This record gives sequence, structure tokens and C-alpha cells, in this order.
Amino acid sequence: MAVELKGLTKRSENYSQWYNELVVKADLAEQSAVRGCMVIKPYGYAIWEKMQRQLDDMFKATGHVNAYFPLLIPKSYFTREAEHVAGFAKECAVVTHYRLKKDEDSNEIIVDPDAKLEEEYIIRPTSETIIWSTYKNWIKSYRDLPILINQWANVMRWEMRTRPFLRTSEFLWQEGHTAHATAEEAEEEAEKMLHVYGEFAENYMAVPVIRGVKTANERFAGALNTYTIEGLMQDGKALQCGTSHFLGQNFAKSFDVQFLDQNNKLDYVWATSWGVSTRLVGALIMTHSDDNGLVLPPNLAPIQVVIVPIYKNAEMLKQIDTKVECIVNTLRNMDISVKYDNADNRRPGFKFADYELKGVPLRLVLGGRDLENGTIEVMRRDTLEKETMPMEGIETKVKDLLDDIQKNIYKKAVEFRNSNIYKVDSYDEFKAQIEKGGMILAHWDGTTETELRVKDETKATIRCIPFEADEESLTPGVDMLTGKPSARRVLFARAY
Amino acid sequence: MAVELKGLTKRSENYSQWYNELVVKADLAEQSAVRGCMVIKPYGYAIWEKMQRQLDDMFKATGHVNAYFPLLIPKSYFTREAEHVAGFAKECAVVTHYRLKKDEDSNEIIVDPDAKLEEEYIIRPTSETIIWSTYKNWIKSYRDLPILINQWANVMRWEMRTRPFLRTSEFLWQEGHTAHATAEEAEEEAEKMLHVYGEFAENYMAVPVIRGVKTANERFAGALNTYTIEGLMQDGKALQCGTSHFLGQNFAKSFDVQFLDQNNKLDYVWATSWGVSTRLVGALIMTHSDDNGLVLPPNLAPIQVVIVPIYKNAEMLKQIDTKVECIVNTLRNMDISVKYDNADNRRPGFKFADYELKGVPLRLVLGGRDLENGTIEVMRRDTLEKETMPMEGIETKVKDLLDDIQKNIYKKAVEFRNSNIYKVDSYDEFKAQIEKGGMILAHWDGTTETELRVKDETKATIRCIPFEADEESLTPGVDMLTGKPSARRVLFARAY
Repeated sequence: MAVELKGLTKRSENYSQWYNELVVKADLAEQSAVRGCMVIKPYGYAIWEKMQRQLDDMFKATGHVNAYFPLLIPKSYFTREAEHVAGFAKECAVVTHYRLKKDEDSNEIIVDPDAKLEEEYIIRPTSETIIWSTYKNWIKSYRDLPILINQWANVMRWEMRTRPFLRTSEFLWQEGHTAHATAEEAEEEAEKMLHVYGEFAENYMAVPVIRGVKTANERFAGALNTYTIEGLMQDGKALQCGTSHFLGQNFAKSFDVQFLDQNNKLDYVWATSWGVSTRLVGALIMTHSDDNGLVLPPNLAPIQVVIVPIYKNAEMLKQIDTKVECIVNTLRNMDISVKYDNADNRRPGFKFADYELKGVPLRLVLGGRDLENGTIEVMRRDTLEKETMPMEGIETKVKDLLDDIQKNIYKKAVEFRNSNIYKVDSYDEFKAQIEKGGMILAHWDGTTETELRVKDETKATIRCIPFEADEESLTPGVDMLTGKPSARRVLFARAY
Repeated sequence: MAVELKGLTKRSENYSQWYNELVVKADLAEQSAVRGCMVIKPYGYAIWEKMQRQLDDMFKATGHVNAYFPLLIPKSYFTREAEHVAGFAKECAVVTHYRLKKDEDSNEIIVDPDAKLEEEYIIRPTSETIIWSTYKNWIKSYRDLPILINQWANVMRWEMRTRPFLRTSEFLWQEGHTAHATAEEAEEEAEKMLHVYGEFAENYMAVPVIRGVKTANERFAGALNTYTIEGLMQDGKALQCGTSHFLGQNFAKSFDVQFLDQNNKLDYVWATSWGVSTRLVGALIMTHSDDNGLVLPPNLAPIQVVIVPIYKNAEMLKQIDTKVECIVNTLRNMDISVKYDNADNRRPGFKFADYELKGVPLRLVLGGRDLENGTIEVMRRDTLEKETMPMEGIETKVKDLLDDIQKNIYKKAVEFRNSNIYKVDSYDEFKAQIEKGGMILAHWDGTTETELRVKDETKATIRCIPFEADEESLTPGVDMLTGKPSARRVLFARAY
């Protein structure tokens, strides 16, 4: 798994190519032999594991438990919620047979025509249907509610155009599916989980996001409301990072899930679902990384600190090893993930470039002169600044620097995002700005017709109606295109 | 999700029914609408999560990293290793189409005949083929070796007869796939991981296992050697709990994975694979549980301690709440998972039966008299013994009791296992004993023919050739059936 360090395209030359190359060169993922599916390599998977662990803790802290439902969905289930099937039927993998056999004529292995399923199965693109068919047996009375379940799973959508992490046919995700006695409680849950996602994005990924609600046209198939967090990537395109849906009683009605309420009256159950996926790894890469490679937030970096020795001979290396051992132990006791790379098959320069490419937040270098002076060289990945520091107390310094890097890359991303949100009032201005990228706050008349016309003509979509907005944005105005009345500004952007 | 406490069949009446009922009544899992697939409910999944966390730590401690490979395998890949496909082709789910559509005549949703795949995909029954097709690109030289990768994933085998956890069409597992420069190193890895499984089974699951090697006939399809850990269930049947395979160069040859060794010579790469699955939850249940329900080892119990208050009025409950809050906090700081159940919608008797059914290792009860006397009642699930103890210092006592329960259920299982291993020398005796259950150490002439005849006539298989055996078992003898020479005794049993 040799790393190719050279020839990473610059972002300014071709952002899209830069991204695709970086994913491969930093050993995060690669294309597989299966159409649109990637192999997530150990370094990329380690980032996803850190995300999982943190999100799972946050879900549990908000009262959720994990469970597991089948991968396959009977076709009849899948088609029961009308809007849902309309949204997903176009892009699903269908299992039709359950056996292979050797063809007697050709001696080839073929699909056994005798093993055709009576009813086809769909590989889950999302699990509302199979889960609500199960909840039917679990829910009789208000005492059985709420159900607060999350599932970590793989799902599959037969995407035509795929990109590693951002859009793949198979992807890993979590999907929360909750059941409630009242509409209010379900709405509250959907919003609560959106805020969990928002906190995770900002505090762990260091990705600032705009929280808001989707327009009817951009809703999840089968939802009454879809909440979203939207990030802005360095190329000026938006990325939907996570969504949370208030599903109303749609799925309960499709699967006949009723409960006796406290007044002994039958009613349909209220539902939410919410999910984030391996797409978050893509958001992470595209928000912080630079022309030298990845920049990872310390809170999610698989290796937070790497230590590289520079030595002239075995004796000097031994001395360095001894010094480093203490540092490593102390850092590990502080729950800091550290790698000491004293392998002798790669030269320091190569190692430096490699760890830079891989986005390790802090690099410590210890050489002969440092041994004499009791110093150590520290480089932070975010600014590439180098500084020679006293070895004494370096561990506390490391901890502080990691905290500072986490804050700094978030601050940088916020500044970038804020300086790329524009208020625009004319459609011409809008079209000009959208070409340059960024997010646009503009007035909209509230119709799907206008929304689709803007999309058609500019490739920009309404990312959300933000929860938070300044007073001016909340003041009524006129639609930039139709001139019809608009209640407030909404957020447009081209998106991944 | 009301718990039905009554009517658990006794093990002595019908062990198999007892198991099936217990899985449902203890809220571990239930049948889904998908043939042979189960829904793993939160309580069952919590056990699996604890297993995963521990195993993952053990894999990482032995130098492994996680990655993720596609769910779907192109048919041509799957069929490339001849023995492998022969072993798995009969039981696989085949994806043939990638779209549904609305039929214009019937208005039904049908599989779109125009969306037929050129090459079918198989849902992975195991991932050797897709992984070795990937390793081909990763391995050029001995410097790229070893590769020590594990994957947590779902897999699917179209089983005809299924039982929750023990054998399901879809199951969750981990599969290690390693690549090595030498046969010796690969063999060593395969054995090492078997011992990791053995330690996990004994120290965490409290399930004693016999470690050994499979006969040629019982090997994994495509392996040169399969190592196994075999447990003995309470009904006298064996359960294969985990396997580790030395795959030789079979997959490297099928996928043309060659490397330059240190002498600059090309050679095929050596492989291992190893896996354990949600079947372990079945092993756990069947080893320890009793007619009152689950008995869980403290090391894997989702709830290790439950505290139930008995009170006459709100004031008394408030007093109890205060006392319990301290205990709960102290226990949580000791990393003990504790639940305080002061819900007022279920009576104490109901709660007691429920937590007994769910196998919570320790139950603490606090009532009015305890408040006066400064005592607390403690019941251990394994022996059902109750004792009233001073409340002062109860936390240390809890810790000790949990350790003791872990040891005690292991000891009990070892005693049961040891008293159900028989040395048998005649085939008549063998046939009589196998009807009664247990494991049998008998002589075998080493031929597949004899092995299959025994299986055919008695339903007993050779579970393994144990690594550890007493001297007498290692002394040559004669095959109980054919009278031909036998090198040593091997382990027979009927198995799940």
C-alpha cells in the first residue's frame, strides 16, 4: 500500500479532481469492482469508526437504543407507502433468485432458473417500511411509546453518477426510527436529532452547518417535514450533511400501526426518521483539506500526533526511542492517539509528506540537536507552522495545540462560510453569483413551480429555510424571479 | 413491548422450544417478514454490541484494523475459486435487476425488465473473493505484507432451516482477512486468532470451548485447514462458535495476487480468514440459561445490576430514591452498568420476574425495613440466592459478586462439559451414547468415507481434532467402525 505523494492536483486547478485524487492518495477509499461501490480502506474506515463512536454516544445520551432489521425488504412492503416508493423505486437493487448452479451444457455457473423467488426482495435503500411493519407488532398502547431505536447499517441506492463518500451505490449509515403518541412529540424528536447532528458536525467535524427545514419539493419521500444541516464546501457548493424527518402518520397508516391512547381511543402512531452516512467523511475532507492533503480535526483524527525521529546511527536512535517512549506513554494516558514512526525503510522527508497528506494534526520531530538541547520540533498541520519547544512538559503543550487546531479549523471554516453567503434580490444577480459559488439568501414565492424553474435554469436548489436568520431576512419581500410576495429569504445553492 | 412472563417451556420438556420461546420472551429477537431473517431487538442487540466492542479491542490489540468491502460480489468473482463456489453457490441471494417501475396495464409496481444487469451480483455469503480481488491492487512486494484487516458486516446465506441467532439467512459477523509472505506466518495468524476467539468465549461469554482442527470434510470451502472452537450446549449438542482458516495460496492463485519476496522472486500470497457471528448470542443463551430465563455473564450483560424499590407511599419512595441515587452513581463510576427501576406502572413481583427472565446478573431490592436497618437485599441470578446485606459498602460487594457470578457460571459450564465428554471404543456404545447426547472421544481411521458413514448413521460429525488431549487419547488405536488403524481419538458430537 505504497503512498503516492506526488502530483496531487491543486484545488484551484480542478477541485473535483483534487477531491477524487486525495481520497485515493490519502488511503481513504478506492473504487471497487462493483458499480458505484467503494472499498473503504483502513485509514478512511478509522475516521468513520470515530464518527460512529461519538454519534452512538450522543444517540444513547438522548435515550436511544440500537437494533437490527433485515437487509431485504419484500417488494410488497416497499410499495405500500405511495410517495416513498415513487422516491426510491428508480434506484434499487432487486433480488430475484436464491441459488446458482452449474449449467450442464456450458459448464458455467449460472443463476438457477428454478430458484426464482415468488416475491422479489429489495435491498434496503432505507428501512422505514420493514421497520414499521415490525413496529405494528410492538405497539398496542400508549404505554409502548415512545420507541426510540437507531440502526447502524449498509444501504443501497442504484446511483447513476457516484463519487467516493459523497454518493455511492452502497453506503454505511445510521438510521433512527422513532414512534410517538403525539404529533408534537414526534416533531420535537425530529428537531432534537437535527440539533444532535448539528452539534456533532460543528464540535467534532469542525464543519459549520446551517440548520433548517426543506421545502416540500426537497423533502424525503414520505415525510411531512424534512430538517437538514447544510455545509458549504471550499468550491462554493453546498453539501447536505444530515437529515431528520417528521413522517407524520404516513407509515403508521400504510402499515396499520394503531395504538390505544390514554383516553382509550385508537389513533395512528406518529413517526420520525433521521440519518447520517459515510458522506460525512466527504464533508470532512472537502471542508478542511488543502493542496498538501487532508486536514483532519483532532476530535476525529485516527492518529492525532505522529512522532518522527531523525538519527545518524543506531545509538542515537536508541536514545531518541527512550525519550519518545515516555512521551508516548504520557500522551496515551491522556487519551491522545499517538504513533511513533521509527521504521527505517522510509526517510524522514517521505514520512513528513505522508503524514501531511494523511492530515495528522500534529507532527513532533526529535533529532540529535534536540537531544542535546532538550527540545522537540512541533508542526501543526492546519497552519503548517513549525516551532521548536522544550521537551519538558511537551505533553500538556500537545493537548493545548490539539484543542487549538480543533478550534482554529472550525473558525476558518466559519469565516469561509460566512464570507460566502450572499443576499441577492435580482434574478440576474442571482445567476451571476451562483456561477461563482456560495450560498445565496433570496426571496422566493413559496411555489414548487418557481423553485423548479430556478433549479432548471441555474442548477441551484433551495437548500433549506434556515431556522436562524437576521431580521432583514425574515422581512417579507418579493420573489426575485416572479415578483410575487415572499414571506422571507430562503437559502439557495448548487449542491453535491 | 409488554413482556410475557408466563409459560416458558421447561428445558427438560422440550429444549428446542424452550430456546425459541426464550429468545422471544426475553426480547432478544423475533422472526421478520423476510424468510429466515430475524429482527434483533434492542436487548439482544445490546449483547451483540458488548461482544463487538470486546472482540474489536482484542483484534486491535493483535494488530488488526477495520475496513469495509462491498456487499455485492460480481458473479464471475464468486465463481473463480472452484471449491469455494461449490460450497456457497447453493445458498446465495442473487441480484439481477436494478429498478422497479409501475406496470402500465396492472398499475402494480413490478421489476423493470429493461433494468436487467449484464452480470448478476451475489449478496456476500463471505467476502474472500471480493477482498482478494482488491488485495491484488494492494500487494506488490513483501513490504506490503502482512495485511491484517477485519470487517464488521452483514452476510447472507439462503438457509433452508433457520433458528434465531443459531442459523439465519442474514446474520451479522466479523470476518478477518489477512495476507502474508509465508505459509508459516499465515498458519500462525490463523491459530492466533482461534486462540483470541477461545479467550473471548471463555473469559467473556463464560463458555468453555474445545480448540482444534477440522477434518478435510468439515473444512471451509477453499481452506487448507480450518480451526474451530466447539462448545457443548445443555442439551448435549455441540455448537461451533468460531472458525479460523488457513487458506494457503488458493485465493491468491484464483485472483492472481503475487508479490516480490525479499530475494526478488515472485510468489503467491498466503491467506487466512476468520469469523464469529451473532450465533455467539445463541451459544451464550444455550450454555447458561435456565427454566426461569436468561442467565447472562456479567462481562456481557447489558444491565449488570438492577435496583428495585418497594414502597408504601410517595414519601417512602423519595427516601429510597435518595439512597439509591448514591449507589447508582458510585456503581457507574466503577464502570458497572446499573438500572434503577422505580417506574410505578409495574409491581415489584412483575419486575422481579422480568429481570430474571432477562438474565440481569444482580438484583438489589430496597424497602421500608431496609431503610430502617440500613440494609439492602441482594439476589444473584445464577444461583437465585437472596441475602440481606448492609447498605454501607454495598458497591464493593456488588463488584465482588459480579466477578464471582462470572467465575461461577463458567465453572458450572466447565463441569457440565467435562462430565459430558465420553471415551467410547465400540460403535454400538457410540450409537447408544450419541442418542443421550454429549461429546465423544473415539478413534477414527482418518478417511472421509468412515466419517460420512458415521454421520449418515448417527447424525454425529467430527467436531474437531482437539489441540489438547490426554496421553491416552493421543495413543494410537483402531477405528470403532472399520477396525482400521487410528492415530488418535477425535471429537464427535451431534451439532447445531
